Amino acid sequence: MQTDKDYRVPHLTTALRGPLLELESQILKNSIAIERWFRKQWLIHRPPITCSVDLRNSGFKLAAIDTNLFPAGFNNLNPSFMSLCIQAAQASMSAINPKCDKVLIIAESHTRNEKYFASLNQLATIFMRAGYDVRVGSLREDLTDVETISLENGQTLSLHPLQRQEDVIHIDDFRPCVILLNNDLSNGAPDILQDIKQRIYPPLSLGWSERTKSQHFSHYQSVVNEFSQLINIDPWFLNPLFRASGDIDFMAKEGLETLAKKVDDLLTQIKKKYQACNIDKTPYVIIKADSGTYGMAVMRVNSADEVLAINRKQRTHMSTAKGKRNVTQVIIQEGVYTFETIGEENAVAEPVVYMIGTHVLGGFYRVHKNRGEDENLNSPGMHFEPLAFDESCNNPSVEQDPDHSQNRFFAYGVVARLALLAAAREINGVTE
Amino acid sequence: MQTDKDYRVPHLTTALRGPLLELESQILKNSIAIERWFRKQWLIHRPPITCSVDLRNSGFKLAAIDTNLFPAGFNNLNPSFMSLCIQAAQASMSAINPKCDKVLIIAESHTRNEKYFASLNQLATIFMRAGYDVRVGSLREDLTDVETISLENGQTLSLHPLQRQEDVIHIDDFRPCVILLNNDLSNGAPDILQDIKQRIYPPLSLGWSERTKSQHFSHYQSVVNEFSQLINIDPWFLNPLFRASGDIDFMAKEGLETLAKKVDDLLTQIKKKYQACNIDKTPYVIIKADSGTYGMAVMRVNSADEVLAINRKQRTHMSTAKGKRNVTQVIIQEGVYTFETIGEENAVAEPVVYMIGTHVLGGFYRVHKNRGEDENLNSPGMHFEPLAFDESCNNPSVEQDPDHSQNRFFAYGVVARLALLAAAREINGVTE
Repeated sequence: MQTDKDYRVPHLTTALRGPLLELESQILKNSIAIERWFRKQWLIHRPPITCSVDLRNSGFKLAAIDTNLFPAGFNNLNPSFMSLCIQAAQASMSAINPKCDKVLIIAESHTRNEKYFASLNQLATIFMRAGYDVRVGSLREDLTDVETISLENGQTLSLHPLQRQEDVIHIDDFRPCVILLNNDLSNGAPDILQDIKQRIYPPLSLGWSERTKSQHFSHYQSVVNEFSQLINIDPWFLNPLFRASGDIDFMAKEGLETLAKKVDDLLTQIKKKYQACNIDKTPYVIIKADSGTYGMAVMRVNSADEVLAINRKQRTHMSTAKGKRNVTQVIIQEGVYTFETIGEENAVAEPVVYMIGTHVLGGFYRVHKNRGEDENLNSPGMHFEPLAFDESCNNPSVEQDPDHSQNRFFAYGVVARLALLAAAREINGVTE
Repeated sequence: MQTDKDYRVPHLTTALRGPLLELESQILKNSIAIERWFRKQWLIHRPPITCSVDLRNSGFKLAAIDTNLFPAGFNNLNPSFMSLCIQAAQASMSAINPKCDKVLIIAESHTRNEKYFASLNQLATIFMRAGYDVRVGSLREDLTDVETISLENGQTLSLHPLQRQEDVIHIDDFRPCVILLNNDLSNGAPDILQDIKQRIYPPLSLGWSERTKSQHFSHYQSVVNEFSQLINIDPWFLNPLFRASGDIDFMAKEGLETLAKKVDDLLTQIKKKYQACNIDKTPYVIIKADSGTYGMAVMRVNSADEVLAINRKQRTHMSTAKGKRNVTQVIIQEGVYTFETIGEENAVAEPVVYMIGTHVLGGFYRVHKNRGEDENLNSPGMHFEPLAFDESCNNPSVEQDPDHSQNRFFAYGVVARLALLAAAREINGVTE
């Protein structure tokens, strides 16, 4: 069993694990203060209903690198955590709208991926078992009647076209009281959802047509600064440094000089931190569409020169975000190495953590066998094997070592909730 | 694995399982309506923080037979449900007092049982891991300093004497904002807890010095009637019929005639139900102290004559409840056969279900190897082996049969919550 278990929990393949152990120790030691602080924050900032956060663990840094308000991947969670998901859905729905009993989930329009529908079905099942009438609706314009999708597990999922009567969205006589967006609105909020009576979670303004990563990470940075003061750590352990690009046009080569300058600035800043912390690694940055998702329009660079030498193919790649939208802004984010690997092949493992309301559930690792420690694991067409966490993320144990898997999962959950809180502040329009 | 699993879930050893299957089917079919109904009820009646409910399953009946507002046995829950308990504690505390961060648990005074302290430690651990400062206090008058108790698992539990300054309970500089009673106050509410500023859960009036089982079951009956209308079943499937005795003095033989008469009435009523439902079993009743607990002052009778023929030893047994209190009222409750047995020895298995706030967690079976299907499994000195439920009680699956273990556990959880709701109405002083 021990070997089996060892295989299922990644290990750190870096000698630079001192900062992580310090971070994990401080998180464990302060777990009561941390929960108290989160409770206070949730009284002010109501979190979204569903959220997933991508983390990177380099041993010297455990950082949130992406926060998804329209998460897929619910099908990759440990099936034994179904009860935890159900309970979280019940607690969260009771907190936001205790009288609601009908939930409409709005599906992504841009995919026919069976795995996405499996995730959607899992999400609908969580809310159904939590005691809600649930329908899954679609914004697809070609959908005029119910479409039934067969899933690999033998179940089926029905996609309904939405109807609107005055300011109420409905599906025949099903009138939802809560609308849960699982569609990132990359092409903008459609007319049918504008000015409706029902509450939409998250609000339309958080769709990728309006949201920017740099705004999110600016909130995340503030959250991390407050949190780091609370538990007395260097905020850099949690925070990927970043810059917003300003206007850019990759095809017309406009704004590239400024971008290169900012890349250089950021690399210099990271280098200083590496030197101060005795980290013998080469800094790098990730450039991503500021309103992008889906792993599209992402590139990795080691120097400003690489930006200036960008070729036509790369420029085309960086110009187009999901939904064929034009990229006009990018975020330059500190690259965080992934030193978590799993199995004998040392496959790279990137944790993704899931939350419903204020409750952190669990997550899974994106395990990729032929990929480097510094590459983006969430690229289009990118193949990964999901590996469900063995344990949930809400159960710290002072009886165990700070880096025991139970406590490592707890640390993941804490960092993921920092990103959740940043998203909550985004939603509530808190300004810096 | 299959055999292993089979062993761990009891099976029904009765041919009379038709009503249960109907009940389980109706519960499963109406699970969304049931959750909606509970949600509405919790908006009106706030439940206690902790509660456990003893169930009996006879195949023709699945009834709550005892509701404990000061539950022990948290140590018997499936360790893999720790996360579920933590999350339930977080959700429940946020709902009743979102700003509270210090919880005082008041321990039972009448026991030195190591298993009780293991339960108390588990309860404290749940709240600590949920992010609360927790202390365990004691009302024992002989306790003048902290007492450290060593537990079998190597952990220790500290029992603190309570201090009071004006209207505030504290332990040195620890000033709790929520006081969680795990002491049933059989000897009355002590002065130190009277008129204090902090909220006590459950309120002092729910201690066994004031509470009566007949009042609880009167609420339970109303709840069951409403619920049975909702899902269209015979309420008797869930409700053990009962009578309150009126004043009684077993030693002076006062009130025995009236008791015998009521026993006869109740047996006649049960007999009629057995006949109507084609149940070929002998009805029996349980007589218990109306304010009693701990399995003390309990007897089983098959006829009114047995009451009249009660001998001195039995009268002494029935006269004394926990804390040496005199029994002056009893409840006569329909006996519910236990036809759930487990293993090759067909050991009798009685489910106990645990809840925190509105959330049903899981439970365990009291498994007793040398005990009959109609005997009380919770008697003083009674030995049982706890067998943790394999699955939680909040995860119904329409893809499985209604009597699949997952759905049976869900049905347990629904019935347990009916008793929880009855307790909530008791707490809020709802009158019939």
